[in-house]
Amino acid sequence: MRALYWDGHELSLRSSYPAPQTATIEDRESKIVGATGSRPESGDDQAALIKVHLAGICSTDLQIFKGYMNFRGVPGHEFVGSVVEGPREIVNKRVVGEINFACGRCDYCDRRLGRHCPSRRVMGILDADGAFAEYVAVPVPNLHVVPSGVGDEEAVFTEPLAAAFEILEQVQVNPGDEVLVLGDGKLGNLCAQVLRLTGARVTALGKHEDKLRLIKRSGVRTMLLSDWQPKHFDVVVEATGSSSGLEQAMRAVRPRGTLVLKSTIAGEHTVSLAPLVINEVTVIGSRCGVFPPALEALSEKTVSVTPMIEKIYPLAEGVEGVAHAGKPGTRKILLRP
Amino acid sequence: MRALYWDGHELSLRSSYPAPQTATIEDRESKIVGATGSRPESGDDQAALIKVHLAGICSTDLQIFKGYMNFRGVPGHEFVGSVVEGPREIVNKRVVGEINFACGRCDYCDRRLGRHCPSRRVMGILDADGAFAEYVAVPVPNLHVVPSGVGDEEAVFTEPLAAAFEILEQVQVNPGDEVLVLGDGKLGNLCAQVLRLTGARVTALGKHEDKLRLIKRSGVRTMLLSDWQPKHFDVVVEATGSSSGLEQAMRAVRPRGTLVLKSTIAGEHTVSLAPLVINEVTVIGSRCGVFPPALEALSEKTVSVTPMIEKIYPLAEGVEGVAHAGKPGTRKILLRP
Repeated sequence: MRALYWDGHELSLRSSYPAPQTATIEDRESKIVGATGSRPESGDDQAALIKVHLAGICSTDLQIFKGYMNFRGVPGHEFVGSVVEGPREIVNKRVVGEINFACGRCDYCDRRLGRHCPSRRVMGILDADGAFAEYVAVPVPNLHVVPSGVGDEEAVFTEPLAAAFEILEQVQVNPGDEVLVLGDGKLGNLCAQVLRLTGARVTALGKHEDKLRLIKRSGVRTMLLSDWQPKHFDVVVEATGSSSGLEQAMRAVRPRGTLVLKSTIAGEHTVSLAPLVINEVTVIGSRCGVFPPALEALSEKTVSVTPMIEKIYPLAEGVEGVAHAGKPGTRKILLRP
Repeated sequence: MRALYWDGHELSLRSSYPAPQTATIEDRESKIVGATGSRPESGDDQAALIKVHLAGICSTDLQIFKGYMNFRGVPGHEFVGSVVEGPREIVNKRVVGEINFACGRCDYCDRRLGRHCPSRRVMGILDADGAFAEYVAVPVPNLHVVPSGVGDEEAVFTEPLAAAFEILEQVQVNPGDEVLVLGDGKLGNLCAQVLRLTGARVTALGKHEDKLRLIKRSGVRTMLLSDWQPKHFDVVVEATGSSSGLEQAMRAVRPRGTLVLKSTIAGEHTVSLAPLVINEVTVIGSRCGVFPPALEALSEKTVSVTPMIEKIYPLAEGVEGVAHAGKPGTRKILLRP
């Protein structure tokens, strides 16, 4: 099959990359993905084979190409596709998949926190090939059937949208709270839209007029960084993907307020921690979320994602697509195998 | 009066420093401390004059002598004394005092968070003279009468003990939780003792056998840093007062666990933030606490503080006392005016 491959130095298109093998593909040796899902009720080592319809390029992928996680293999963890091999009830169904392939047997899996399973593999990020390919293998318990009213170009946003909903799993955001989202990129946009659903007063702060305009359509107040006036917020979400965002975020959070870190930034950062202690700020690292709230929001159209799409590249032009995604100010780039 | 004075470069004993003036001292111009208390029920600009019995030297004082807060004046924020001028019902009473002199009128004061009042002054730390002196002026609402069963050498620990209790105001610690306290100094000792009251399984990690032995007396498990084996804890409290403690703390907290920062360390620190995000750790800055739980614990003898006292210096030898307190491994140094 065709796939993009990252060898640690270069991303290249491979035209005869071995397709994932699942236990149900008969004429090949059984060599399944072998992990179980993030939901502890399943203990079966069973993967489904999925034909990828669309895959999204995310900032984490761009970080991987800078050395993050020391990954080698097929990147890509945002996808929508259809099941070609797997349990009968999902064959031919359109699916999206949670990206953490957990062991299903440890304390974290028992507490439904498979996404923190210490022996997990992560699709396209850690020890598991991802979705920048014609086919991808995903443990069955990780899959969610896409509701019929949700198109592929919406469903491919499920994973980053779930990451935005994760904030609401971790932080009590109340109607009327003053919330600041730092960053007008894709993650910032999704976070702002999700936070707005709580009834909080959400402001998005960014550098790009066109991107802020996109966010404003969802009823979020927006402000250019150049117009910033010092003000304190109850909750600040750092979603810039840059280390300078952190300093700004620390200045904007009120004493006893909450600072949510959404960006995984490779490397070390120099920060002054005394203000955190003096102001008794709570800093919460926030990563992946579970998919049901995101699929529900897409189904009910309470969030809007397709205006974020900048361009869809065929997989054969995936290397160019990744280069495009890496240009500052680019909206979402999708790959179509 | 005699007082220690920090001029930004040097700490010195001044033998005729002007005593604090309160409205009730008749033969002096009225020039009261002028702040109101941290409890919003009081709005009076009224300070009491207190004769200091004992004052404690704290790590924050030592940080001040390295430039922290850019303070100038009489340091000292841990004290016990008796009221010589003030409302009749507290004159001659032994008192301790909360250190944040709040405005009493802002949103924070309204929410009983006067210790975060943006226009607060802080005794011996920010725009208010402190207790390394024969007399100190403190807003009446900040004062708490010391129960008769609590000696001066115990009561002088009320402020740092309240800071330890502040953790329980901010973090839900459950019986059976695995809790690690990093640092075997005075703050680490108090934090370990307070956390033990929750029924959590508390381990104190430090560098000093003698100090760990002191902590062990209170039923806390102890471990030398040199014997450390990697392990994950539900809650980790950073109370080392050094930046190396932070790295250690980040490694010891489990995914979705809580890291409490108790040390105010001047300067900037280089940290890798990606693990916070990946492991969805909650970092909570924690500073001053309210006094009643601390006074209650001292009264009921559920915590033990006097074994922490290393030496009591007369105020006249306060400069030597501060030098002694700054030596690594020193326990609590007190000053007696």
